[in-house]
Amino acid sequence: MDFCYIEDIGKHEGEKVTLKGWLYNKRSKGKIHFLLVRDGTGIIQCVLTKGEVADNIFNTSDELTQESSLEVTGTVRQDQRAPGGYELNLSDLKIIQIAQDYPITPKPHGTTFLFDHRHLYLRSRRPHAILKVRNELIWAIRNYFYKNKFVLIDTPLLTGSVGETTSTLFETQYLNEGKAYLAQTGQLYLEAAIAAFGKVYCFGPTFRAEKSKTRRHLTEFWMVEAEEAFYDNDDNMDLQEDFLIFIVNWILEKCQEELKELERDISPLEKVKKPFYRISYDEAVEKLKKAGSKIEWGTDFGGEDETILTKMFDRPVFVYNYPKKARAFYMKPHPTRDDVVLCADLLAPEGYGEIIGGSQRNDDYDSLVQRIKEENLPLDAYKWFLDLRKYGSVPHSGFGLGVERTLTWICGLSHIRESIPFPRTIYRLYP
Amino acid sequence: MDFCYIEDIGKHEGEKVTLKGWLYNKRSKGKIHFLLVRDGTGIIQCVLTKGEVADNIFNTSDELTQESSLEVTGTVRQDQRAPGGYELNLSDLKIIQIAQDYPITPKPHGTTFLFDHRHLYLRSRRPHAILKVRNELIWAIRNYFYKNKFVLIDTPLLTGSVGETTSTLFETQYLNEGKAYLAQTGQLYLEAAIAAFGKVYCFGPTFRAEKSKTRRHLTEFWMVEAEEAFYDNDDNMDLQEDFLIFIVNWILEKCQEELKELERDISPLEKVKKPFYRISYDEAVEKLKKAGSKIEWGTDFGGEDETILTKMFDRPVFVYNYPKKARAFYMKPHPTRDDVVLCADLLAPEGYGEIIGGSQRNDDYDSLVQRIKEENLPLDAYKWFLDLRKYGSVPHSGFGLGVERTLTWICGLSHIRESIPFPRTIYRLYP
Repeated sequence: MDFCYIEDIGKHEGEKVTLKGWLYNKRSKGKIHFLLVRDGTGIIQCVLTKGEVADNIFNTSDELTQESSLEVTGTVRQDQRAPGGYELNLSDLKIIQIAQDYPITPKPHGTTFLFDHRHLYLRSRRPHAILKVRNELIWAIRNYFYKNKFVLIDTPLLTGSVGETTSTLFETQYLNEGKAYLAQTGQLYLEAAIAAFGKVYCFGPTFRAEKSKTRRHLTEFWMVEAEEAFYDNDDNMDLQEDFLIFIVNWILEKCQEELKELERDISPLEKVKKPFYRISYDEAVEKLKKAGSKIEWGTDFGGEDETILTKMFDRPVFVYNYPKKARAFYMKPHPTRDDVVLCADLLAPEGYGEIIGGSQRNDDYDSLVQRIKEENLPLDAYKWFLDLRKYGSVPHSGFGLGVERTLTWICGLSHIRESIPFPRTIYRLYP
Repeated sequence: MDFCYIEDIGKHEGEKVTLKGWLYNKRSKGKIHFLLVRDGTGIIQCVLTKGEVADNIFNTSDELTQESSLEVTGTVRQDQRAPGGYELNLSDLKIIQIAQDYPITPKPHGTTFLFDHRHLYLRSRRPHAILKVRNELIWAIRNYFYKNKFVLIDTPLLTGSVGETTSTLFETQYLNEGKAYLAQTGQLYLEAAIAAFGKVYCFGPTFRAEKSKTRRHLTEFWMVEAEEAFYDNDDNMDLQEDFLIFIVNWILEKCQEELKELERDISPLEKVKKPFYRISYDEAVEKLKKAGSKIEWGTDFGGEDETILTKMFDRPVFVYNYPKKARAFYMKPHPTRDDVVLCADLLAPEGYGEIIGGSQRNDDYDSLVQRIKEENLPLDAYKWFLDLRKYGSVPHSGFGLGVERTLTWICGLSHIRESIPFPRTIYRLYP
């Protein structure tokens, strides 16, 4: 390519380079124009000095509006005062397109307005920083599983069998084959794959047609799910702990600039170390009651409960062994208690709450059939899933981590909609 | 964990280890039982010798059926004759579950039967090898983009705006917000993101409600798409060339064993080097006509045409500048010819055909509006997309690579259904 990127500018000190990008801002001091140019990889101050360039080039700067696209050529100069440490002394400036009335101005805008213009709003500093962290977060996740020899098994999105519940599924007509549903989990398919590969994971978009209007819900979000043959619920928690520490450390190492831009206090992230707290559901309920919650044993935690609970701990906390009636049919019954199952949720600190749900899976054919019937699920749709308990069934466990909830916590955001490029929520399908 | 994986067995020569897995096969020679055990990471021969283990353990072997799950403990011994180079001299054997009448026996089965049992069929050597290559292929793809500083932008799957054509979309009711469609491409969203990040990519499942029953079509498949600001159609082809060479080399390096298992002749893959052939659509039509095809200028190639064409070349070939009427509305018109657009398809050799479609994008507001109207697409749904041509429009290009078609070629498969864990085709939504 005949141009260079701002992130690489330090390699070209003293050299003449060409950059291509967009005008972020500009100011003038008499005979000097300062143009802040961004190209997606960084922002650099470009200096146009009257007399040093032809007048027509110097005057071109007057026409430039916010977000106009342009090509600049100049000499790279180190300057400690400049943001990024370098400036470009321009010798040439070419306009690609003048932008007219860019709607997102430096003045404050409302959230609805910004998300109605998400296709443009991505260019602003805050979403730019968040999505750069997202990029690293997803890379860290994939890196962890690849290096630890999990095999990626892409599970189908269109499925005839339902996952956990029928009430929040998006459905579509599948050619002439009847209805199909958008998957809420790839877990059942991963359970098939462990007998072929041992340790597997999937990572894709997931859908919940939930009419929830909260700061924690999207209708379309990304989830990474892992499944491990011969792991029990404790092994599963050990794995999650190791995994989460890896990804948080990765972000702390790679995204210092972005976390600074977001004014994220990183000290709570620096505390994400072994061992995480592990408390039983029973204990959690007791703690919540003492803290004034109205929770009763047997129900799931609300967002408010999770907030209270996680503020009691300075690191992530596992809550294990939830009531059977509050959990999905596929979880393994506790060996000595009939009312709870072998599972755990991992709650992020600082009030953020659940980011991982995991469990040991029911590997017994008869008991699984019974649970499917109890939940009034269509036995026929689970025929293949039940096969897995007939042909060399083994103890196994798995978990799913919600990418957007994790990113929301890591970046310290107050609403999940900021954590995905184009959010889909109860009222938003555009742009 | 209290067990080790077969792939790591070489690290434990002379040591006593425990493996957990499934019985793949067994045979006996009088006082010696040979058990072939697989655990997802490999297959190892385990040896039970009468007199060296208690009789009850030796006799346990008689009960073991194909795909029974078990735990074996023994001493690792190097043996050049053994597959994998090591054997396990057993001192203990525990049955986890006896499998009854595993349906996939060593005798041949029909394709429909195997794919009806895909949840079990994954355990067989051939699908195992293919999906291990898939795992590496996807890692290589992500690795390429990460290392080359493309930012991952996950584009929405549920969308109100249609992509290229309305006729092959899956639709669903989106809560109270009307109809939503399953995305056929993330490109339009990536075009928004380049102005924020410069170079971006997305990688997710893609849907086509096509009633095509061919060996190249799935209704749900994975596609990686890249989009690059300030790249023209030639730069775009250079990038694709570099990208494809990277991923093919990666597979050749990492998947020797799997390609051998698949009996893939790797010599055509070893020829994937710069420069790829580049011929215009016009030239391609001439070549095809000479070869006896009935193609007329102006239409797209059929699968048969692609097969003929790619067999003329010993490396991948770009066909560039297709007729405008055969291509999507968003492609940039040729500067001097009204009948073609600036685009290219990359065809894989050996008859495999198209694996990448790419183009320079139309970055001019007025001409893009005209094309949308010509195609009778709903202008309103493209309002945000048109915005991108108003606020700092820049020359840009992008492409999409179909993962399953690429894997089908790399592995030398005859049908695309083998290239994805749980294929979705015109008649298949199960398991």
